[in-house]
Amino acid sequence: MSSATATPRRQDFKVLRSMPTRWNDNDHYGHVNNVVYYSYFDSAVNGYLIEATGVDTRELPAIGLVAETGCRYLKELSFPDRLEIGLRLEKLGTSSVIYQLAVFRSGDDEPAAIGRFVHVYVDREHRRPVNIPDVVRTALAKL
Amino acid sequence: MSSATATPRRQDFKVLRSMPTRWNDNDHYGHVNNVVYYSYFDSAVNGYLIEATGVDTRELPAIGLVAETGCRYLKELSFPDRLEIGLRLEKLGTSSVIYQLAVFRSGDDEPAAIGRFVHVYVDREHRRPVNIPDVVRTALAKL
Amino acid sequence: MSSATATPRRQDFKVLRSMPTRWNDNDHYGHVNNVVYYSYFDSAVNGYLIEATGVDTRELPAIGLVAETGCRYLKELSFPDRLEIGLRLEKLGTSSVIYQLAVFRSGDDEPAAIGRFVHVYVDREHRRPVNIPDVVRTALAKL
Amino acid sequence: MSSATATPRRQDFKVLRSMPTRWNDNDHYGHVNNVVYYSYFDSAVNGYLIEATGVDTRELPAIGLVAETGCRYLKELSFPDRLEIGLRLEKLGTSSVIYQLAVFRSGDDEPAAIGRFVHVYVDREHRRPVNIPDVVRTALAKL
Repeated sequence: MSSATATPRRQDFKVLRSMPTRWNDNDHYGHVNNVVYYSYFDSAVNGYLIEATGVDTRELPAIGLVAETGCRYLKELSFPDRLEIGLRLEKLGTSSVIYQLAVFRSGDDEPAAIGRFVHVYVDREHRRPVNIPDVVRTALAKL
Repeated sequence: MSSATATPRRQDFKVLRSMPTRWNDNDHYGHVNNVVYYSYFDSAVNGYLIEATGVDTRELPAIGLVAETGCRYLKELSFPDRLEIGLRLEKLGTSSVIYQLAVFRSGDDEPAAIGRFVHVYVDREHRRPVNIPDVVRTALAKL
Repeated sequence: MSSATATPRRQDFKVLRSMPTRWNDNDHYGHVNNVVYYSYFDSAVNGYLIEATGVDTRELPAIGLVAETGCRYLKELSFPDRLEIGLRLEKLGTSSVIYQLAVFRSGDDEPAAIGRFVHVYVDREHRRPVNIPDVVRTALAKL
Repeated sequence: MSSATATPRRQDFKVLRSMPTRWNDNDHYGHVNNVVYYSYFDSAVNGYLIEATGVDTRELPAIGLVAETGCRYLKELSFPDRLEIGLRLEKLGTSSVIYQLAVFRSGDDEPAAIGRFVHVYVDREHRRPVNIPDVVRTALAKL
């Protein structure tokens, strides 16, 4: 998330998932709390994977554990804003995948926040890294 | 919320607000946590009021404080279920309003949960009960 | 939760569990959001059960599903308040238990909120009501 | 958060703030959800500032807005783990401060997660960068 990187815009994301804010997303200062953006991110990633694979990815022998996340906050948001969460691949490896995420207020071209989300696939028993399941890899190829 | 009361169905609610679940709505048992239903409720109530009044009700001289809430859980829900939150008046008083709420999995006629939500209007400075603002009362009349 | 019932005080609770507030417990109005009280309640109930039984109650063949909850809000709370959650039995049945809960700001005798929390024990496979496990019943007897 | 940086240990943090987990911190996989770590972070930062300054920092003319956050997840946590959140300065500027945070399971020397949290101070009216308030700067000097 170097500041040298150009900030992506709406048209850079093929996948955008709608996400209404909730009343208690707002914190003491009357804006969406920094923590809540991460619930937008893991809802967007996992929601996309479940829909695009057509299977409940939580029940696969290999599950995606979150290894690292990050977010830069660019504009304030507030309930009842309606949001869209952009989702694209930053890097696809053998057992891990890095997503870039962006939060757009509905209709905006410029993001209110830019995120990063790293999934490492592990076998659900021993939690050791394994290959990304084929069904997930196929879904990732569409991003 | 007497168990003698007939459980309302979808057609009993003129107002239904869509609410996607989020990944972390699910708890250890793999279903939407009991706490989270209340975030559906206050998002539905406040979202309706802001839209139906056309004003930011949080900035009115009188604000609605939550005096009591309750929920009966009838069916399990799980991310990525898409929900609709039904909203209707149970009782309208001078300074307080009681909402009945219902959580429907999209397409279901029977609710997954039935809630109750009591707002008491107070002046924002001294937090003493005042009349429900006219603009809110007009919006409530449409429920 | 009839308003005729006398509001319990601190000394009415043998079990009190400490609970610090979190920054994002506060909502737009700068006070702990009504939803969050329920996370105090299920943390207090489940935390007590795990400690008092000495087993991970989530792994028992019978698990407690939440059938009903409720809360009356009496005083406002705000981060960084330190809280104590009082816990006692309202009613103990064959397969269900009703807890009364109370939220105290540390040092206060009078509660900031009074709650109700109903657990129904079911077998984890078929989710049908079963007897409360003995180990849980023994822990409940100490409340 | 380069992986080249040595992972800090418990003794590297002068300030450690206790943080019990909550039942619904756990997600579908039975471990603390990635989102929730950020609520530990902003509770630790803001809780420290309010205590160490002796004033309600939310009421100062300059408030800290969160510009960037990040977290690397190293070990799984689960309710009812009791945690300690370590807090130290990574960088102190004129109008911004970067905190390093670490999540320790009570008694552990090695962190379960390492975080980063950037506050930029702005005047509350126009939300433009201003100097870190003296009372905050004094508190930061103790970290």
